[in-house]
Amino acid sequence: MEGVDHLAHERNMAQFDVNDMKIVWAGSPQAFEVSHRMSRLVANDPAFRKDNSVHLTRKELFKNSLRKAAYAWKRIIELKLSEEEAGRLRFFVDEPAYTDVHWGMFVPFLKAQGTEEQLQKWLPLAYKMQIIGCYAQTELGHGSNVQGLETTATFDPKTDEFVIHSPTLTSSKWWPGGLGKVSTHAIVFARLIIDGRDYGVHGFIVQIRSLDDHSVLPGITIGDIGMKFGIGAYSTMDNGVMHFDHIRILRNQLLMRFSQVTREGKYVQSDVPRQLLYGTMVAVRKMIVVDASNALSRAVCIATRYGAVRRQFGAQDGVETQVINYKTQQSRLFPLLASAYAFRFVGEWLQWLYTDVTERLAANDFSTLPEVHACTAGLKSITTAATADGIEECRKLCGGHGYLCSSGLPELFAVYVPACTYEGDNVVLLLQVARFLVKTISQLVSGKKPVGTTAYMGQLQHLMESTCRVQNAEDWLNPSMVLEVFEARSARMSVECTKKLSNFTNQEEGFQELSPSFVDAAVAHCQLIVVSKFIEKLQGDIAGKGVKEQLQKLFSIYALYTLHKHMGDFLSTSTITPKQASLADDLLRSLYSQVRPNAIALVDAFNHTDHYLGSILGRYDGNVYPNLYDEAWKDPMNDSAVPDGYHEYIKPLLKEQVRNSRL
Amino acid sequence: MEGVDHLAHERNMAQFDVNDMKIVWAGSPQAFEVSHRMSRLVANDPAFRKDNSVHLTRKELFKNSLRKAAYAWKRIIELKLSEEEAGRLRFFVDEPAYTDVHWGMFVPFLKAQGTEEQLQKWLPLAYKMQIIGCYAQTELGHGSNVQGLETTATFDPKTDEFVIHSPTLTSSKWWPGGLGKVSTHAIVFARLIIDGRDYGVHGFIVQIRSLDDHSVLPGITIGDIGMKFGIGAYSTMDNGVMHFDHIRILRNQLLMRFSQVTREGKYVQSDVPRQLLYGTMVAVRKMIVVDASNALSRAVCIATRYGAVRRQFGAQDGVETQVINYKTQQSRLFPLLASAYAFRFVGEWLQWLYTDVTERLAANDFSTLPEVHACTAGLKSITTAATADGIEECRKLCGGHGYLCSSGLPELFAVYVPACTYEGDNVVLLLQVARFLVKTISQLVSGKKPVGTTAYMGQLQHLMESTCRVQNAEDWLNPSMVLEVFEARSARMSVECTKKLSNFTNQEEGFQELSPSFVDAAVAHCQLIVVSKFIEKLQGDIAGKGVKEQLQKLFSIYALYTLHKHMGDFLSTSTITPKQASLADDLLRSLYSQVRPNAIALVDAFNHTDHYLGSILGRYDGNVYPNLYDEAWKDPMNDSAVPDGYHEYIKPLLKEQVRNSRL
Repeated sequence: MEGVDHLAHERNMAQFDVNDMKIVWAGSPQAFEVSHRMSRLVANDPAFRKDNSVHLTRKELFKNSLRKAAYAWKRIIELKLSEEEAGRLRFFVDEPAYTDVHWGMFVPFLKAQGTEEQLQKWLPLAYKMQIIGCYAQTELGHGSNVQGLETTATFDPKTDEFVIHSPTLTSSKWWPGGLGKVSTHAIVFARLIIDGRDYGVHGFIVQIRSLDDHSVLPGITIGDIGMKFGIGAYSTMDNGVMHFDHIRILRNQLLMRFSQVTREGKYVQSDVPRQLLYGTMVAVRKMIVVDASNALSRAVCIATRYGAVRRQFGAQDGVETQVINYKTQQSRLFPLLASAYAFRFVGEWLQWLYTDVTERLAANDFSTLPEVHACTAGLKSITTAATADGIEECRKLCGGHGYLCSSGLPELFAVYVPACTYEGDNVVLLLQVARFLVKTISQLVSGKKPVGTTAYMGQLQHLMESTCRVQNAEDWLNPSMVLEVFEARSARMSVECTKKLSNFTNQEEGFQELSPSFVDAAVAHCQLIVVSKFIEKLQGDIAGKGVKEQLQKLFSIYALYTLHKHMGDFLSTSTITPKQASLADDLLRSLYSQVRPNAIALVDAFNHTDHYLGSILGRYDGNVYPNLYDEAWKDPMNDSAVPDGYHEYIKPLLKEQVRNSRL
Repeated sequence: MEGVDHLAHERNMAQFDVNDMKIVWAGSPQAFEVSHRMSRLVANDPAFRKDNSVHLTRKELFKNSLRKAAYAWKRIIELKLSEEEAGRLRFFVDEPAYTDVHWGMFVPFLKAQGTEEQLQKWLPLAYKMQIIGCYAQTELGHGSNVQGLETTATFDPKTDEFVIHSPTLTSSKWWPGGLGKVSTHAIVFARLIIDGRDYGVHGFIVQIRSLDDHSVLPGITIGDIGMKFGIGAYSTMDNGVMHFDHIRILRNQLLMRFSQVTREGKYVQSDVPRQLLYGTMVAVRKMIVVDASNALSRAVCIATRYGAVRRQFGAQDGVETQVINYKTQQSRLFPLLASAYAFRFVGEWLQWLYTDVTERLAANDFSTLPEVHACTAGLKSITTAATADGIEECRKLCGGHGYLCSSGLPELFAVYVPACTYEGDNVVLLLQVARFLVKTISQLVSGKKPVGTTAYMGQLQHLMESTCRVQNAEDWLNPSMVLEVFEARSARMSVECTKKLSNFTNQEEGFQELSPSFVDAAVAHCQLIVVSKFIEKLQGDIAGKGVKEQLQKLFSIYALYTLHKHMGDFLSTSTITPKQASLADDLLRSLYSQVRPNAIALVDAFNHTDHYLGSILGRYDGNVYPNLYDEAWKDPMNDSAVPDGYHEYIKPLLKEQVRNSRL
């Protein structure tokens, strides 16, 4: 049956042009073209195969990822790929590797914090990979709280050097990717100490391995921190531990764009505004949000295709019902499909925000920074949390077979979940959002106008008093009615928390005490952002037969499902009535039916290759069962019919000789 | 610092007697004694160590689990352990193995479905492990819907045999544990065909491997189905695939307690009521609920202890705050702590239910069976779902280090999640509960009195009209007020769904269309059961200083957290007002503060050994960081400083020779 498309019937049902939707998903024809070309380049090259990874030991897997990284670099050079193309190629190789950290953290951080002179020295080496860098911030005992780091960098005026030292066990650097086995250099974060005075945490560039034989330099101890969640997942990454015993580096290895130490040991702040770092932060968080849409789209694609293949119960003429036709499946799957699109568009908007912030910073306009910080922190938090949960939900939607590695879902979950913790723990970030919301509200009285994603707070009086105008289910299709209830819910929750806070004499204690409610309020605010950016997307030009109509349905599903899930918020703030909530649920069920015939085409629009999906259940052609069956036999356990250990550990039982056997 | 208890201060804060709480958790002094003895026996025997499992290949891991199973069996014989003791010993070995299936499914099913004659033949062999059995029900294309199985067992009157056959690829048996490499026999579920007529699915006992050399018998194809979620997890289990090519078995290998086939090929139902099978079902589901409390208690124990060890932010005198002191941590962790206790007590009640059902069946009283079926199905569903989510939440609560295998949490999640799917997919089970609720309500008009866990439906009129009497936060401490709102919410949701259903002319179509709401109603009903059984537990005698007080607080946390999480239900049914919801939240925050000093002692009461926990973060002594550090160096990746692959894949990059290297 090779070459038969078992899902052709599903594809023929679609009521929109899937090729146009692919462009919308990719963001532009140009972005689509590059992604399409790079994904196929990787998928068609046997050197990048990954389906055998679950049978390798950690060391084999790691060596294999070193091979892929080098091979990818070779191809990048041979094909003279642009920076964008190279990034996409690495992305589609789809295995965490030291190169992610080198290109994604070491190089950008160097660019952001190095002086011109430092960039001239280090950047060419990094660009040519003559040095490989990692980013050594977190320590064994210190994660979220960067200011609590213990590593010290003490200035020695006698030799004009810094002495990098790990004073305790808990000050060991712990987690940096690429550190354990590969990197030659690290950006090390350490407390800058001059003449006994602590100037806080700064970044230093430190060589950690010999460029001759790759041995770890004297006085430094480095290792891999061991196994992590999943079989493949981050096993291809050498997350490391590093301990310094009074390592000396030159004074000019302090990254000095924002502050310098002079030959005399004087600490000098430069006139470059530190706010410029916000640009990097927005760029990183944009990537995380886009990655969330990638990861979620992948899980949804697998669960949707397999949902159309798999049949259970409800036999009609001897053929069971496709599970995707069950409302219980649809009500779990389609909101995730809609979320993937929603996160895609909010990621697209963050790209715009990045440009906007960069332009403002260039013009010394820092006015939007607190709002930008809050909204990107919040979006990182809610999109990664929803994606991690969504992947696991998709796995459950695939029934027992979702538990097989060949479904691709266990490893996708294992490799994705760290996103909830790295670059800011999700709950810690939401508390930052909440603090900003409190501030925004408290500044309203003094007439300070809220900007950007908090602009709606400017109509606080109206939002506190407004009543939802929905009278029948179809009213919920109206984006402006939806937007208003999301605004009202968010505003009311923030105001409620702020009011409760004012009962406390100690504001900080009050904030801690009420923090669970503040987290809820922050989530409400961030969901509003996602809803509003989806609406803005729909207000723009969207080409292609039926494309906009499908996106409108997905918007309604995202919004009304979110409303359903957080109904307690909407009802407790009296934003909507129980009757209106019930109408929303009715509409939601009908939207599921409307999306159903388009489901396969909507996941085809992600344009994922079978290589990238890495899932037998999610195969494009839907030919699941013969391939699941064949895959099983590839397991090394099936090399022999009688297993290793039969003679020692099974036979003695069966022959009742276990008493005398040596076990 | 060996031997120092870093959590001693925490333990001294406890306001109750932890030893008495241990008895409550175990269920009885006798149960505590057996569990305590067996857990220490396993923990202190180096043959059962499991901390090295993440470094083994699948084949090594599997062989190691064969060794442990044989060794455990040897110890069971040597120590002349009782059935209870042997079961606890196997439990504490804490690795899925073929013995779980042999003792937990093959033997019980044989006992349930075999005739006296069949038991006399097979049971002694199984008890002595002279045969090893598995349970071959699910097929590659068929899971939940047992009636859709394709394997056939066709009676051949000429030879007085059944011919077992797999007519299609999708009819291959798929998933049975113990099948892939170990079992000599299987209970095979197949469609019984006599003279062209299909009598539906029946169980047959089939020998699948030679007792001489363990080779697979001719005509049968067997293999392992390959890698699953996690590194260890179910890698120690040989979940298998099996395909039959016209295998002949004797007629008396049909398990004939409930129906026989005569020599002449006549199908005869016996006079043994099929309802007797319910007893087994209750016993299995009781085990699953108790396992949920075990798994959740384990994750909670790790996250609680590490929460007391780990410090972040809020430096006072240079010492950061224990993360467990943050309200955001408490509001995520303590409801899970309370859930572990809640599930424990509902599991205990299911033990009583099992006795009750068994007695009724013996007296031919089948009146409670539908209710028993519904409530056990629903409790299986909500406890396993909450536990799977709870383990992952505990992992996130441990920050980055929760992602390390040495935290124990990734593997605990991976090994636990199948519970949401096996023995009935959780959503499918909830729909069965919902059908029963609809039936219960529709029969009220005809005067049929609801029994057991649905007895509250007898006061439907009252529950539809009652108003919650809570006026201040402390009123929420009153169990009867809590119970009434849970009853009212559940009753109202069921009634609402049933009303909507009556608008459909086709009831089945209506049920499908409304199924997401029915699932919500079923969850509400099942949460009520948990709440009510916790209350019943508190109404009994509970010995020990301060023990009952702590349990009362945990009850309130479980109930009010559930209320908070499902606030939309309570508000949309007008069961409580927004003001009352807000009071519940206020009380909840204060309860978190009250439980805080008791948190470590409350997880100590689980009496888990460090061996069973398998977590450096959850160590009893709290000595986390030195042990995390030491553990890292045990990884084979640290055997050499320069990694395998340096010369081929790293050096060429650094030396700019990648262009010419062979990759």
